[in-house]
Amino acid sequence: MKKISVFNHVTIDNFYTGPNGEIDWFKEIKPDEEWHKYTHSQARGSSTLIFGRTTYEMMKSFWPTQEAIKSDPAMAKAVNESPKIIFSKTLKNVEEGPRWKNVILHHEINPDEIIKLKKKSDLTILGSGSIVQQFTNLNLIDEYFLVVVPVILGKGKSFFDGVDKKNLKLVEAKSFKNGIVLLHYQI
Amino acid sequence: MKKISVFNHVTIDNFYTGPNGEIDWFKEIKPDEEWHKYTHSQARGSSTLIFGRTTYEMMKSFWPTQEAIKSDPAMAKAVNESPKIIFSKTLKNVEEGPRWKNVILHHEINPDEIIKLKKKSDLTILGSGSIVQQFTNLNLIDEYFLVVVPVILGKGKSFFDGVDKKNLKLVEAKSFKNGIVLLHYQI
Repeated sequence: MKKISVFNHVTIDNFYTGPNGEIDWFKEIKPDEEWHKYTHSQARGSSTLIFGRTTYEMMKSFWPTQEAIKSDPAMAKAVNESPKIIFSKTLKNVEEGPRWKNVILHHEINPDEIIKLKKKSDLTILGSGSIVQQFTNLNLIDEYFLVVVPVILGKGKSFFDGVDKKNLKLVEAKSFKNGIVLLHYQI
Repeated sequence: MKKISVFNHVTIDNFYTGPNGEIDWFKEIKPDEEWHKYTHSQARGSSTLIFGRTTYEMMKSFWPTQEAIKSDPAMAKAVNESPKIIFSKTLKNVEEGPRWKNVILHHEINPDEIIKLKKKSDLTILGSGSIVQQFTNLNLIDEYFLVVVPVILGKGKSFFDGVDKKNLKLVEAKSFKNGIVLLHYQI
């Protein structure tokens, strides 16, 4: 059985952005070789990637560039070539190019369609907090990888906001020298 | 230098209670020998314990009883005999007894007085989320021990609500077989 996974950064107080989408606290993540290796080992899979519009636009403006390909060829290849599904109500179309392949746009989240997609391939939502929140509310997520950055924001957006109470199963908690804790839960 | 520490249970979405003080999700914590040992090793210290009214009343109605002393003598002794400071605006007085000793009531949180107390002994806030929040806002906390219970609540109270952005230093992340993750941070 394939899985739908979430891989997302959160603060200690469990926000994926500040109240107005601020992600400046990402800058607090210090370089860490073990963390770098870990993220790259994760990216080697054959998942279909899922993005909301905001994350999609960030990814598209970075990973196909010469700069990205030079600084991190393995990750650039993984992101640029993996199948990508973008969920957006407002985007009219998505671009593809020689370095930015396999992009499909969906205007809405249809649970039946998601289940069909999941039969064919693992799905991984990267970033895209509001998509995570909608998938969570539809009980579509099988696994959460929460990357806890050692920052307290005080206010912000949580993708668990308003969801029904749920018990999760801890698979692993792994800490890194840069203060990141990866919490891996299963539904 | 002595320290002011927080030891508190939180959900994955970082709530210490539901919106109306619900702590029924504590029941989800499954027995775990290693976890039991860990909490007991922590309780052996010489800290002064700090409680808000709600936690104080729970503690007082349980730990001095025969049932508590019989089922967990070491923890009962630690809680019953340690110096205890209760912060409450509404309580008129606090009780002491042969099995419930060293209780002092403060009507308000005076940072200068707290600093004086800290010179004499380590201070540990157990539970008491609203006290944690007030101490956090006054920048009085040195260490957080967040006991992450594998539950998502969807809504509730966070003791970091509204605090200024802060970077913390991860000391340790420790997971237990019952799914609890202990996140230990320093300011």
